[in-house]
Amino acid sequence: MSEQEKFVVVGAGAFGTALGTVMALDGRSVTLMGRDPSLMADLRNDRVHNAALPGVPLPDLLQFSAEPDALEEATIVLFAVPSQAHADAARHYGPYIHRDAAVVTAAKGIERKSGLLLTQVLERELPHHPLAVLSGPGFAGDLARGLPTAMAIAANDQAIAERLARSLSTPSFRLYASLDPVGVQLGGALKNVLAIACGVVEGAGLGDSARAALISRGLAEMSRLVVAMGGQPDTVRGLSGLGDLVLTATSHQSRNLRFGIGLGQGEPADMSGGNLIEGAYTAAIAASLGESHHVELPVTEAVAAIIEGRLDVRSAMEQLMSRPITTE
Amino acid sequence: MSEQEKFVVVGAGAFGTALGTVMALDGRSVTLMGRDPSLMADLRNDRVHNAALPGVPLPDLLQFSAEPDALEEATIVLFAVPSQAHADAARHYGPYIHRDAAVVTAAKGIERKSGLLLTQVLERELPHHPLAVLSGPGFAGDLARGLPTAMAIAANDQAIAERLARSLSTPSFRLYASLDPVGVQLGGALKNVLAIACGVVEGAGLGDSARAALISRGLAEMSRLVVAMGGQPDTVRGLSGLGDLVLTATSHQSRNLRFGIGLGQGEPADMSGGNLIEGAYTAAIAASLGESHHVELPVTEAVAAIIEGRLDVRSAMEQLMSRPITTE
Repeated sequence: MSEQEKFVVVGAGAFGTALGTVMALDGRSVTLMGRDPSLMADLRNDRVHNAALPGVPLPDLLQFSAEPDALEEATIVLFAVPSQAHADAARHYGPYIHRDAAVVTAAKGIERKSGLLLTQVLERELPHHPLAVLSGPGFAGDLARGLPTAMAIAANDQAIAERLARSLSTPSFRLYASLDPVGVQLGGALKNVLAIACGVVEGAGLGDSARAALISRGLAEMSRLVVAMGGQPDTVRGLSGLGDLVLTATSHQSRNLRFGIGLGQGEPADMSGGNLIEGAYTAAIAASLGESHHVELPVTEAVAAIIEGRLDVRSAMEQLMSRPITTE
Repeated sequence: MSEQEKFVVVGAGAFGTALGTVMALDGRSVTLMGRDPSLMADLRNDRVHNAALPGVPLPDLLQFSAEPDALEEATIVLFAVPSQAHADAARHYGPYIHRDAAVVTAAKGIERKSGLLLTQVLERELPHHPLAVLSGPGFAGDLARGLPTAMAIAANDQAIAERLARSLSTPSFRLYASLDPVGVQLGGALKNVLAIACGVVEGAGLGDSARAALISRGLAEMSRLVVAMGGQPDTVRGLSGLGDLVLTATSHQSRNLRFGIGLGQGEPADMSGGNLIEGAYTAAIAASLGESHHVELPVTEAVAAIIEGRLDVRSAMEQLMSRPITTE
């Protein structure tokens, strides 16, 4: 029962703050946890997170803490930290998490040095917990303002997936249970690569029709990789993957899209804002996952090659368009 | 072999003219046929169609005719007339079409009075021809300018589908063969309904996340109707359906989207530009197809009810968001 659950959201960035906010708005008691005591004290006093969610009032039921002790009573812990910070956060906070608590990753990426999905990273670091992943089309600002949002929550265990879907959902924030954490995570990670590709097409002035074709063909290759890695073929055509891609690839709120637009306009890849352009790193990792699983990923490979300066945009489009005409 | 094919495009609107243009640009001999002799003479002389494709030069290889006799040598006839004009065009031009010629519909809709798909209308009117449907994400302007475009061409017969894909494709205009004309047509018709729904969400200020969720859930219901009507579940997640929806629902070039935005802003449905808002008519037809095939179509039904004034936008969104949380 959701009334008995106690929630801690680890990570006081935009998405973590939004997650805590939407649940607190629905009457749940939620603690938002971050490592910077002065930030957490400011949030508690100001009831607004100007750096992450400017202009959004934070509800009274949302609590703030920099003390890991606050994790001890949590029954559900959500990790809303960057993908590459997951292992470190798991090690730092793990000792405080009750051994029965479910741990949910809310990030979209792949661990660079290992090529592991984030639930696999959590399994390595926190092997005895029920694990799940939250993914799909939800902008932090929309969530926190109580605008309608639907996402997927996936676990290998059906009872866990359904318990989490039920206990995290609110009237404006609808979670759908999935039993395919591989598909949901690859959908969330790879859509960033496709969003860059859509940006390239937009930046190069190739038209809306080309972008639509790219999305359609890109989802097909995403699905092939999911199947090769043990997931279900249709998952990436649901909320995570397709839904998320539509959001990312068509909204200029997306950093991945804007990065792609720059590439399409002939700018060299600027990785100085590195951590923010998840898709740029994911492209290279996904391309090598494709190789090791013997799956052709022409769009992903083209994005990786453009970023690395091995291919120009015009040649990439010619390659993509001149692939053999096959049955769809 | 495509060198031996002779093409006639029936219908000198934007899409028909663009189809003829893209094939003529690739060196094919194509005749564009319309009923208005003075328009056809103007096109022949001016080499531009200012009403339909302003600013796009029409290639020398594109011929123009108002004489149905020109159909007699065609091996492939493409019907690029409005959905509701298909039966009449088939009766008018049918007697001139060689009995071996393949006939392809390039419109996206359902015949209102019969609820039939357009290939079914052609089968009724032209029962002895190989039939196919061309659908997917292609704006006339992008096609005619030679920007990269990919669409699906579907027929029940594999040899026909592959012959058409091969002979109509050009370097910029890629056709993928499909054996699911039901799925391809429902994808093309129903995406107009979903585009209206996306417009409603945009007009009502419900946010990008809500639009992404709606597209994802809407494709799932599209797929259910396709299966009930004898098509394949994945077809609408390809170029026709998903690809086309991404194009329509995210580009303000779409009349269906703009119509939905008006509804979302509280304007009553204005059907005076009736023929142009295919999706508004398709919503009612699709809702009744859902009923007769016992398929739940909550998004389609909500759009039909909003257009008919039976439901306001806020109540519709509450209904959609409060549906039971099920496994995705």
